[in-house]
Amino acid sequence: MRNILHKMNTTGEKFRFTGFGESHGVAVGGVIDGCPAGVRIDMDAIQRDLSRRAGRTGDLPVSMRAKGEEDTVEWLSGLMDGVTLGTPIAFFVRNREGYSEDYDNLRDVFRPGHADYTYHTKYGIRDWRGGGRASARETAARVVAGAIAKQILSSRGIHVEAVLSQVGEEQDSARFAELIRSYQQMGDSIGGIVSCRITGVPAGVGEPIFGKVQARLAAAMFSIQACKGFDYGSGFEGVGQPGSVANAFSGGMLGGITDGTDITFRCVFKPTPSISLSQEMCTIDGDMVTRQISGRHDPCVAVRAVPVVEAMAAITMLDMLN
Amino acid sequence: MRNILHKMNTTGEKFRFTGFGESHGVAVGGVIDGCPAGVRIDMDAIQRDLSRRAGRTGDLPVSMRAKGEEDTVEWLSGLMDGVTLGTPIAFFVRNREGYSEDYDNLRDVFRPGHADYTYHTKYGIRDWRGGGRASARETAARVVAGAIAKQILSSRGIHVEAVLSQVGEEQDSARFAELIRSYQQMGDSIGGIVSCRITGVPAGVGEPIFGKVQARLAAAMFSIQACKGFDYGSGFEGVGQPGSVANAFSGGMLGGITDGTDITFRCVFKPTPSISLSQEMCTIDGDMVTRQISGRHDPCVAVRAVPVVEAMAAITMLDMLN
Amino acid sequence: MRNILHKMNTTGEKFRFTGFGESHGVAVGGVIDGCPAGVRIDMDAIQRDLSRRAGRTGDLPVSMRAKGEEDTVEWLSGLMDGVTLGTPIAFFVRNREGYSEDYDNLRDVFRPGHADYTYHTKYGIRDWRGGGRASARETAARVVAGAIAKQILSSRGIHVEAVLSQVGEEQDSARFAELIRSYQQMGDSIGGIVSCRITGVPAGVGEPIFGKVQARLAAAMFSIQACKGFDYGSGFEGVGQPGSVANAFSGGMLGGITDGTDITFRCVFKPTPSISLSQEMCTIDGDMVTRQISGRHDPCVAVRAVPVVEAMAAITMLDMLN
Amino acid sequence: MRNILHKMNTTGEKFRFTGFGESHGVAVGGVIDGCPAGVRIDMDAIQRDLSRRAGRTGDLPVSMRAKGEEDTVEWLSGLMDGVTLGTPIAFFVRNREGYSEDYDNLRDVFRPGHADYTYHTKYGIRDWRGGGRASARETAARVVAGAIAKQILSSRGIHVEAVLSQVGEEQDSARFAELIRSYQQMGDSIGGIVSCRITGVPAGVGEPIFGKVQARLAAAMFSIQACKGFDYGSGFEGVGQPGSVANAFSGGMLGGITDGTDITFRCVFKPTPSISLSQEMCTIDGDMVTRQISGRHDPCVAVRAVPVVEAMAAITMLDMLN
Repeated sequence: MRNILHKMNTTGEKFRFTGFGESHGVAVGGVIDGCPAGVRIDMDAIQRDLSRRAGRTGDLPVSMRAKGEEDTVEWLSGLMDGVTLGTPIAFFVRNREGYSEDYDNLRDVFRPGHADYTYHTKYGIRDWRGGGRASARETAARVVAGAIAKQILSSRGIHVEAVLSQVGEEQDSARFAELIRSYQQMGDSIGGIVSCRITGVPAGVGEPIFGKVQARLAAAMFSIQACKGFDYGSGFEGVGQPGSVANAFSGGMLGGITDGTDITFRCVFKPTPSISLSQEMCTIDGDMVTRQISGRHDPCVAVRAVPVVEAMAAITMLDMLN
Repeated sequence: MRNILHKMNTTGEKFRFTGFGESHGVAVGGVIDGCPAGVRIDMDAIQRDLSRRAGRTGDLPVSMRAKGEEDTVEWLSGLMDGVTLGTPIAFFVRNREGYSEDYDNLRDVFRPGHADYTYHTKYGIRDWRGGGRASARETAARVVAGAIAKQILSSRGIHVEAVLSQVGEEQDSARFAELIRSYQQMGDSIGGIVSCRITGVPAGVGEPIFGKVQARLAAAMFSIQACKGFDYGSGFEGVGQPGSVANAFSGGMLGGITDGTDITFRCVFKPTPSISLSQEMCTIDGDMVTRQISGRHDPCVAVRAVPVVEAMAAITMLDMLN
Repeated sequence: MRNILHKMNTTGEKFRFTGFGESHGVAVGGVIDGCPAGVRIDMDAIQRDLSRRAGRTGDLPVSMRAKGEEDTVEWLSGLMDGVTLGTPIAFFVRNREGYSEDYDNLRDVFRPGHADYTYHTKYGIRDWRGGGRASARETAARVVAGAIAKQILSSRGIHVEAVLSQVGEEQDSARFAELIRSYQQMGDSIGGIVSCRITGVPAGVGEPIFGKVQARLAAAMFSIQACKGFDYGSGFEGVGQPGSVANAFSGGMLGGITDGTDITFRCVFKPTPSISLSQEMCTIDGDMVTRQISGRHDPCVAVRAVPVVEAMAAITMLDMLN
Repeated sequence: MRNILHKMNTTGEKFRFTGFGESHGVAVGGVIDGCPAGVRIDMDAIQRDLSRRAGRTGDLPVSMRAKGEEDTVEWLSGLMDGVTLGTPIAFFVRNREGYSEDYDNLRDVFRPGHADYTYHTKYGIRDWRGGGRASARETAARVVAGAIAKQILSSRGIHVEAVLSQVGEEQDSARFAELIRSYQQMGDSIGGIVSCRITGVPAGVGEPIFGKVQARLAAAMFSIQACKGFDYGSGFEGVGQPGSVANAFSGGMLGGITDGTDITFRCVFKPTPSISLSQEMCTIDGDMVTRQISGRHDPCVAVRAVPVVEAMAAITMLDMLN
């Protein structure tokens, strides 16, 4: 037995989410601890966010698998007649069967840009069928928790909304679908930027030094697969502004504490590392081989990251508010 | 009595740092818990980093105050004959007296771009003399802890090095001094980017989902005053790269776990909000007034942020390694 | 909506258990995070401990409900072919239906010695059917996690064993059944002491000051319903010993750190507060009424606490060892 | 370098105390994070508790060293004109010089009943001069933090009071001094019980399952040197009571949550392990030798534990209340 730990599947102190599940196991799910009692859960809203995450809404190209059977939630505890009891809310979403054969030729190689090599190094084992716990499949559970968090925030006048604001260098949303399709047709993929705005947060939320709101939000966003950058307010683009101009763009936080204006931040997502083009890959034995990744993968993961960004922003903000 | 808390002055689980101190109080300092026993501390290395933080090294323009009397460390526990005992290491750096009069005309206003308003809202009180706990003065204690962390990392072959890589839009370091001076002379300030590289980290460090290395590093960087953005590997600039290209730029982490290549990240710092130009400010009573901030402030805070970025990177990396 | 939180359903840092479930809801269950990968789980051992907890083994009198249908575990994640993946292990045990009618006359009163009043005060609501989340029903999930922890400890030569060592003032185990039955026949209940021994723990486990082994074990035991006292080594009985004698009874821990000898501790459990005798009770409206608690309750909860003590000891010890 | 950690020197989440200091180093001290702003600290009350801890008050026999020079507090941060700022409060108490020679003949042996052997095993080093970090000397810092916590609690109508309620088997406080002196004259020591009562806590404080008030209090008490047992309400003595009687003795907590009645608990302290009588001791090389511990040690550590019990009870209760 090797002493191998996965252990950081919990986030939050007061509104605390613990996730579980592998992409090709029985289910993905979670436990929410700290949800206020007496909240009537809007099940339709949860389903809508699950559909958004699956790429079933909108017209942007996503993977074929996502378009399959709908995800549905099964509840184990914490609810009575659809109302929260204040006790831990446990739930799960069953995984659909099949698709494992897509990964048959990848059993012995580490896919470039994926966590295959790093998990293998850390744990000594890995689930080669679609990434296991490292797969973005687990974000379905986060979206459920986030949908609950958004409802509670909303009842306090706080709203979280994320949009896909850039694909490659393109910022005109009307041209996103065509651009993504062009990469898809080349068997390639492309990055994107998700922009998020949180309105209605009162001034005075957050903690100084190591509990700053921007630090909490950044950590939350970097927990999402493929996120490579985070900025807020004037961000990276403001580097050339003089102080006399920049002082007007707080992004909603000063000294780590909200100032009562809208919180605005951006996350950049790298292009899907799984592409149809043949790539050089390293095998478990250390040899280099050229291989192709089959399956129909998302040509732009930023598309389906939008509701996940919202979910993590909501979970994080509610944890700080409570 | 209002129920007012500052509470997030601790970071880390295994190599844990707790900071204390206001900019115009007796001292700033900290307690390091979890430092290995038997380490001979290189006091000169600590002093060198304190001098870098004070802007005493290099030729880039910094505030006058920084150029004053040297910071020195006093030790209270955890060391015997310069060797760590394994017990908590407590230390402090006395604040220099004076300079409070620079803030006399700011007693009743909230400086734009500072934490004055947000602290006032959250705590009901604030130290108007230089920012109190929100001042970057407290980073002196982080630099001491970081210098110790760097020594321990170094003994394991891990090195952390940050540089100022951009000032405004300028990336040629030979022209930084002149550019900063030009903003200083205008009574204005300018932003900058600090780039950091961590070499020698073995593959397999980090935790999945909510304990990813990039999330930990990002949270650490956003704890630094004026940091507005963080990216790693291909980052924001890679948004236009197709997957076939981007797969080569991991930034040292995949799936949240190190892959054995160099960790590379960037932090953008906004321009110093304290500028000599007259600015519109809001008073405690809600009126708008035009006022000037006296004192000689850093025209580009990114300059002195460089050793703080190193310190926080080292503290964070050591906490994950232990 | 009231801002009402239950939030402390997680214990441990490295071997971390999060529990969920109400006594009359769908299921009780848990998520184990930090379980080493590659461990083949002995499902029979888990079942045996669930049966012990249900009072199905041994000949001591327990409640009728406990003797009903057997508890069985359903697994959602973290296992493949009965072997741990290192990822979070999620599982649940379905609650049996029925028995709610036993509580019909208790809807509007606070049972003496139960958490009815304190939960009502804290949360504004409570599940009057058998205690909800406060019911010892939730310990079924802890017993599952504890059985896994015991297997891992056992593979390292560490064994946890608890016994019922006292019922009332009686210490002769041959007379326990008769004594308990006598209280049962009177419609009353009686307290007991569970003694636990942990063998094979190497010297040097534990942390000074606030992470002492005895503090961790005590907190674990006081998380069990009805536990009113904890001592170790010479404990309360050693108060009259002079130092020259007492120095020989460490209980396996000195300065909070294990000394390599057996760890020995005791927990006292109060008599079941649910008794058949009529009792004065306070109603929700603040009136006093005389009422009887129907249902067939455990006459001595210490009996079924034995495997729960073992489970919590194992979970706690493994968390400190990892 | 060995990878040796002391790391658990922090307790509390909201009112958080971090301690530092070795018994024969420069100082012992601490950092309080989360103290409300705007509290005027009663410095005399702190001094009174430091005197109680030193055994300078009352007429019960304590060690000679304790009767020496008075402990005084030096403040580094978090206070302005004696009023809390809400920022971390850092302070220290200098250690008196001398007394190290008392330990000269103990350099190479492990004193029975002390943490000498366990620290040596865990850390590879230990300070043989009076226990270093394991010494009860560090409780001076806890008493300072506790005195502040008591003032804040007191302003909310909550009072914490501990008394020495038993010495050996003796419960008549008028006979304690004589009894302790008789053990002292024999060169031996004796155990004792400290009883604590917390009044004024409203109903509804505490968290279910792993955050129960009794679990928090027990963990706090077991962090105190020489504490071997903790019980509350009917405790160990109630084991023989039938449920019909025991239901009346809650000890102030039901289901882990306060019920609005007084919280009552007891802690048993073992006899001082340092006695003047010759004892068998194990040397670092594993040989057995007979040796005498010089110095004039407390014949009954429970005497000076009284204000430490109060301090830890206050720190813990305030952390749960905030």
